Amino acid sequence: MKINENYKNLNESYLFSTISSKVMEFLANNPDRELIRLGIGDVTRPLTKSTVEALASASCAMGTQEDFHGYGPEQGYSFLREKIKEYYLKNGANLRIDEIFVSDGAKSDLGNILDIFSTDNLVLIPNPVYPVYVDTNIMAGRRIMFLDANQQNNFLPLPDENLKADIVYLCSPNNPTGAAYSRDDLEKWVNWAIKNEAVILFDAAYECFISDKNLPKSIFEIEGAKKCAIEFCSLSKMAGFTGTRLGYTVVPTALSFDNMSLNKMWLRRQTTKFNGVPYIIQKGAEAVFTPQGQREILENINYYKINAKVIADTMADNNIWHTGGIHSPYIWFKCPNGMQSWEFFDYMLNSIAVVGTPGIGFGSNGEGFFRLTAFGTYEKTVEAMKRFNGMLRNM
Amino acid sequence: MKINENYKNLNESYLFSTISSKVMEFLANNPDRELIRLGIGDVTRPLTKSTVEALASASCAMGTQEDFHGYGPEQGYSFLREKIKEYYLKNGANLRIDEIFVSDGAKSDLGNILDIFSTDNLVLIPNPVYPVYVDTNIMAGRRIMFLDANQQNNFLPLPDENLKADIVYLCSPNNPTGAAYSRDDLEKWVNWAIKNEAVILFDAAYECFISDKNLPKSIFEIEGAKKCAIEFCSLSKMAGFTGTRLGYTVVPTALSFDNMSLNKMWLRRQTTKFNGVPYIIQKGAEAVFTPQGQREILENINYYKINAKVIADTMADNNIWHTGGIHSPYIWFKCPNGMQSWEFFDYMLNSIAVVGTPGIGFGSNGEGFFRLTAFGTYEKTVEAMKRFNGMLRNM
Repeated sequence: MKINENYKNLNESYLFSTISSKVMEFLANNPDRELIRLGIGDVTRPLTKSTVEALASASCAMGTQEDFHGYGPEQGYSFLREKIKEYYLKNGANLRIDEIFVSDGAKSDLGNILDIFSTDNLVLIPNPVYPVYVDTNIMAGRRIMFLDANQQNNFLPLPDENLKADIVYLCSPNNPTGAAYSRDDLEKWVNWAIKNEAVILFDAAYECFISDKNLPKSIFEIEGAKKCAIEFCSLSKMAGFTGTRLGYTVVPTALSFDNMSLNKMWLRRQTTKFNGVPYIIQKGAEAVFTPQGQREILENINYYKINAKVIADTMADNNIWHTGGIHSPYIWFKCPNGMQSWEFFDYMLNSIAVVGTPGIGFGSNGEGFFRLTAFGTYEKTVEAMKRFNGMLRNM
Repeated sequence: MKINENYKNLNESYLFSTISSKVMEFLANNPDRELIRLGIGDVTRPLTKSTVEALASASCAMGTQEDFHGYGPEQGYSFLREKIKEYYLKNGANLRIDEIFVSDGAKSDLGNILDIFSTDNLVLIPNPVYPVYVDTNIMAGRRIMFLDANQQNNFLPLPDENLKADIVYLCSPNNPTGAAYSRDDLEKWVNWAIKNEAVILFDAAYECFISDKNLPKSIFEIEGAKKCAIEFCSLSKMAGFTGTRLGYTVVPTALSFDNMSLNKMWLRRQTTKFNGVPYIIQKGAEAVFTPQGQREILENINYYKINAKVIADTMADNNIWHTGGIHSPYIWFKCPNGMQSWEFFDYMLNSIAVVGTPGIGFGSNGEGFFRLTAFGTYEKTVEAMKRFNGMLRNM
């Protein structure tokens, strides 16, 4: 048996294990210091009341003969897909039910979608970015070209006339930079993709943090996007579902290449290699989209957004160049005094016992940058920024 | 952008849609006749008390700050993997915790595992069999060779000296035939695989129906299997989890090809393209493996097994050649009077209003055979077999 040789080309990622060992060493040497973690990429607030009630009630229903649910539709129950359709309609994107595929999360779908594309495609991936885009394409042996995101373009790169690629990843609001594309920007990308017969894989996992009506939450708010884009979204950050697992992917029926409908190809992929999301979890997700559910999750989102503002304001007050912090739980900033990412990590840990994530961990263009997140508690975020100000005064 | 051209080689499966339209036509023409469905491949009995309590309790925990769970380990929580390890140990298979990967189901893993193998492998697939094995390999463009299962080998084909292949699928107890390999049989397969440097993908989704201590429930009860086999299992049939979604895959750490550990490759695949099973569902699964949980699910399994015996006894009493029905919820029999599969489907539907599944739907060697399942109610199964006896008397 021959293995998939492409796996030999994967680099081990030592980002989070290195952070973890540095933190452990610090705590061993400084048992009395109170550590504050602002590197967390996971939500910390519990599921809301409506969701918990729906989950518990569906759990009980599964124990009764009349309300037991066996195999469901692989692409999700209509009761949930209808709700997602309504959610998109509020933002001006009109989807068909059969364009919405419920899954166990955006990460799974971002990897699995590659099944329907030839390995002979040139893939364009922003640098820095969420590492999964790179690794999933290395596994399939696709050629990867990087798209420079940097201070000059505010970490929001745009296509130029000479750019050629077959598949492009866009993540907005971005992980790790928190930067969000404007409507004009996305129009440029959509026009470029149509002209170049390329597909945009649009990662909208952080759309719920957008509160400016002028910023698009979905690429399908842009004219023509249904001819060139697939969108990935998730309840992970929106409703605290990181451990509850539910996402959805939108594959327009108008999306067709070589006379093959990508929507039908994805349906075939999912019905063959997936068996749907648990009925219980889909009932929990349905509750998220009720008016009461939306009010409840907005409280949590706003909680994180206040933390983000505390961090972003600290950067602004200190004239530190940064992105994010407004329409995103992430704040991406230039390391003070021209420090490198890991150098600043060590400096901040040792001087004020605050942990973040070195920008270099997301790609070479992240060197010299740093990411803090809004997923801590308000009290600890305020305390961390107080220490941060003190650190800067002593630098 | 270029699509994955292999999708053009997939055949549409009309099996269940054809059954459905034939049944609808029959009901429209015979509104007064009471239909009995014995074609069901899904469980029908609700989740048991322990499971429901664990699911509901975990749902509530997710709404509290102290017991909220965000991202979990992609390969499953230790509390569940420990229980699965104990379950295997009872059958004499000693696994390490890091050999057990919890997933959303055997179907997903059977498809996704192919990621770690080169597309340049020759795949050996029994005929007839669960259609997912074939379709997932067509999607990847692998060469497929079929292995004849038939009346001569009791639908349990064995390797001979000249057989060459890189990857082989075995499903025991089998879907659709219900036939189960003996220890001797599996030893032959393991020896063949080691000699040929092949990998066995062992689908054990129906192992819970085995009650004979002499029949292996897991391929890892066979000496040497850890050097050549990956096993897929699921709580779908064991604990009624078809709509609750939890399975597990065992990839031995001793399994190595081309100096690459398949266990590490699978771990990398799962951490890159999967984010774990919902915490709530894993708590539900944990309850299945407690002594009380095992007692409860055994009641359901025995209920289905009594149905299976009713059907198998009917076949035996009528001297109809058949497999399954003892260690399986499936009964696979030769159509009476030398009928073809669809011919018999129509005959049985029209004469006694009983629905089953034509064997030809599982591969060309299924022609002339038919599958009935034990997932109906006891009363309806008995009634169907009464009608079946009457039908035979009038044939």
